[in-house]
Amino acid sequence: MKFCSECAGPVSLRVPEGDDRPRYVCDSCCTIHYQNPNIVAGCIAEWEGRILLCRRAIEPRHGLWTLPAGFMELGETTQQAATRETLEEARARVELDALYAVFNLPHINQVYMLFRGRLLGPDFSAGEESLEVALFDRDSVPWDALAFQVVAETLKLYFGEQPGGRYGLYVGDIERLSREPLRYRTRYL
Amino acid sequence: MKFCSECAGPVSLRVPEGDDRPRYVCDSCCTIHYQNPNIVAGCIAEWEGRILLCRRAIEPRHGLWTLPAGFMELGETTQQAATRETLEEARARVELDALYAVFNLPHINQVYMLFRGRLLGPDFSAGEESLEVALFDRDSVPWDALAFQVVAETLKLYFGEQPGGRYGLYVGDIERLSREPLRYRTRYL
Repeated sequence: MKFCSECAGPVSLRVPEGDDRPRYVCDSCCTIHYQNPNIVAGCIAEWEGRILLCRRAIEPRHGLWTLPAGFMELGETTQQAATRETLEEARARVELDALYAVFNLPHINQVYMLFRGRLLGPDFSAGEESLEVALFDRDSVPWDALAFQVVAETLKLYFGEQPGGRYGLYVGDIERLSREPLRYRTRYL
Repeated sequence: MKFCSECAGPVSLRVPEGDDRPRYVCDSCCTIHYQNPNIVAGCIAEWEGRILLCRRAIEPRHGLWTLPAGFMELGETTQQAATRETLEEARARVELDALYAVFNLPHINQVYMLFRGRLLGPDFSAGEESLEVALFDRDSVPWDALAFQVVAETLKLYFGEQPGGRYGLYVGDIERLSREPLRYRTRYL
């Protein structure tokens, strides 16, 4: 951020009075421009014991597999965001059952909120941001070609549930320990 | 938003190519300025069967009671945000047990994430944004002087739990039906 979105004046990074951390503050009109983490909402959409994954047609991680998920928009709920992303990326209609996992990714200022749900039918196809879409059981998941650590963690949890048992609700923090090589640590509340 | 924070050029609200909703787009450098909902993280902090509420020293709802909660900051987790807000607003240290409730407030683009926890001791006092801080049981909660609908909903859920039972995890949508008079509808997933 270089300029004020209210008056076009230059902004400086400084601690406003009464605050405890640097913010972008307009030198001219004094507007404080807060920045906050974003929610990524998504679905674990099941059909006859298998779940829906999308192979990404966009960067980052072009060509790798992910759960249908994306940034929550203004004016919608997290559930609406999760079902919308499933429709957009996998052309699939889903009914949500429950929140399943919340993952904090503080190194990229994202909070994933992933819901469990059921496809309303076996109809799906690649949306504009996907190369292909398919259903996978535990043994067929492309574990070595998953796009993001948060997807791998979620699939491990989900396929680890006891058949006929009660689903858990998980809150995890995924911390990036290093970039080269890429290493993460996940801890659960 | 009137000006681009990258180049100070004027912005227009229009649908970018390949998108499906209006965004602020810079007329000059073409930067798309996405806007997304914010997370409000907070605590239901218990001590000997009573929970901590803060009487607000700031607008909106000055003088009314709320759970310690506030906007999640960059670089932190939702749990860190919840414990930080409890420390700032109630000068209280808390250990979190679990996520308890997620509330979507689409009319103000907020998602509340409220955690259950226990005070580490009976030490608390009003932080800068609070007039006073106190512990309440179900019968002493100032039900007619609560600051926000989301606080009332959360306290109803929490005090409705069965003694010795397993706590629930709630995902609710609070919709504002009208402003005058102020009316809301809450629905749970």
